[in-house]
Amino acid sequence: MSESSPRKRLKPLTSADLPPGVWSTQATIRFGHCDPAGIVFTPRYFDILHVVIEDFFGGALALDYYAMAHTRRLGLGYGHAACDFFKPNRMGDRLDVAVSVAHIGQSSYALDLHAMRDGAETVRGHFVTVTTAMETWRPIPIPSDIHAALLAYRERCGAAPA
Amino acid sequence: MSESSPRKRLKPLTSADLPPGVWSTQATIRFGHCDPAGIVFTPRYFDILHVVIEDFFGGALALDYYAMAHTRRLGLGYGHAACDFFKPNRMGDRLDVAVSVAHIGQSSYALDLHAMRDGAETVRGHFVTVTTAMETWRPIPIPSDIHAALLAYRERCGAAPA
Amino acid sequence: MSESSPRKRLKPLTSADLPPGVWSTQATIRFGHCDPAGIVFTPRYFDILHVVIEDFFGGALALDYYAMAHTRRLGLGYGHAACDFFKPNRMGDRLDVAVSVAHIGQSSYALDLHAMRDGAETVRGHFVTVTTAMETWRPIPIPSDIHAALLAYRERCGAAPA
Amino acid sequence: MSESSPRKRLKPLTSADLPPGVWSTQATIRFGHCDPAGIVFTPRYFDILHVVIEDFFGGALALDYYAMAHTRRLGLGYGHAACDFFKPNRMGDRLDVAVSVAHIGQSSYALDLHAMRDGAETVRGHFVTVTTAMETWRPIPIPSDIHAALLAYRERCGAAPA
Repeated sequence: MSESSPRKRLKPLTSADLPPGVWSTQATIRFGHCDPAGIVFTPRYFDILHVVIEDFFGGALALDYYAMAHTRRLGLGYGHAACDFFKPNRMGDRLDVAVSVAHIGQSSYALDLHAMRDGAETVRGHFVTVTTAMETWRPIPIPSDIHAALLAYRERCGAAPA
Repeated sequence: MSESSPRKRLKPLTSADLPPGVWSTQATIRFGHCDPAGIVFTPRYFDILHVVIEDFFGGALALDYYAMAHTRRLGLGYGHAACDFFKPNRMGDRLDVAVSVAHIGQSSYALDLHAMRDGAETVRGHFVTVTTAMETWRPIPIPSDIHAALLAYRERCGAAPA
Repeated sequence: MSESSPRKRLKPLTSADLPPGVWSTQATIRFGHCDPAGIVFTPRYFDILHVVIEDFFGGALALDYYAMAHTRRLGLGYGHAACDFFKPNRMGDRLDVAVSVAHIGQSSYALDLHAMRDGAETVRGHFVTVTTAMETWRPIPIPSDIHAALLAYRERCGAAPA
Repeated sequence: MSESSPRKRLKPLTSADLPPGVWSTQATIRFGHCDPAGIVFTPRYFDILHVVIEDFFGGALALDYYAMAHTRRLGLGYGHAACDFFKPNRMGDRLDVAVSVAHIGQSSYALDLHAMRDGAETVRGHFVTVTTAMETWRPIPIPSDIHAALLAYRERCGAAPA
């Protein structure tokens, strides 16, 4: 196997780097999120950030995440999910997790999740959702209400200070 | 916020694409890994693949993963963790997860995890470990036994068919 | 093995059965809590209820749960943990979880957790904490601040209507 | 609220206490099962023991656990789930988990799970399954193949030494 060149490391943001209208929510690091090293166990960040996305639907898009799966049989599964870790978090830490729209495509969209503590980014999540019909798992175009809400939110956010 | 260009999607491998000497282990998809859509809930893949890495230490590197943290106070936390999802997996599915070394750096190394079912890659994990001193969380050079074992394993794997 | 006689099933409470001064907090059932049957996967209830206990310390006892482990090296592990399930919960359901003190002993105390939805108990948790010194795992008397706070809370709750 | 009298503590078994024909399987304690105190986080035991029950179906009852839910739309949810903790377990520990049938009723059965390490019981699980129709969540009689297999297994186990 040939050596692949390593991915360039992302640089953590500060609160000032976030766009002015960005939506965020609080998350508390719990005892059960943490491992014997005393810091959050990596897979738990994906649990924490997925919950933020559920709340982003209600809080920023005014859409009911749970109704999507229940009533509309819409799949909002991921094609890609990633985290970059800048600083460890410990039990009792309170994070402000801001959500920005990284990309809106035909049948997928990408969200960036910035988990801030004391004004500094500790973890960045990048989740690419592929919209599918739940029965067939085939990609379908992003439903128009989600598409419109994502566009409106991105507009509302405003540009981050360069 | 300006639109970022989307990341290029990876292409799933077949068993024939894996190098001849690659180490792999089995993982069974459990009821509790799956969500109301009937497929593995995304964060659970990170649990499953982290366990594979623990077993890769014993099985392919002949090193005791648990002794690293316990006795040597060595941190093997991640700087980056990502999955690409090609095909959904359901409870009862049995995966063969092959591990390849993507990169060996100064104080970090990257592993690719190929979760195969019926000869096709269903999920690809990419985990970048940063070796740290557990008390300070500062990066330290990859300990020499791990470094040597990773190099030897990569050599032993052989090149994947082009 | 001889047949043991089955444990008597508990009867679910209604909101009117809870004592007037009981402390409670909200918990939302998340997509990731649920299994392919569409309801909360049993082990996730223990995650959910443990988080309630963490918040009960701050909210009802005015004690910092996280400082116990961090600073005081006090173990608050469980000697027994149990749930009785009366009604299934689904993603999006909002529970009010009330906490009552079932028992205060020498080096252990027991909490009951009543997860109510629409005025009816859906799940009852029963968690027995054994206070230990974290280095030795030996039971120690309940520290006096916790003991006093549990007594005061139980007093404050008042008796449930008979 | 009146003080309830505390539940009597169970006494841990030794390997010699298990019936001669008992079925058991191995479970490894993983890094991600453990909390900042360095021992298994309580809710993770319910994950670990539920997986043992899945394997007990195949290994001891010769029934396919996953086909129950998938094909037969049979619910095997729990009416009660409990653990008693005798000794802490740490990452790398290997447990032998033995399963005994505690009770067989009309529409429920109870299993005891004995997690042994070095011949001593560290954790005892007690899981009461209520058989239901998955669409209605109503209890139904234990299907005859499961009923027969549980009876046969219990017989085969033989009596534990008194």
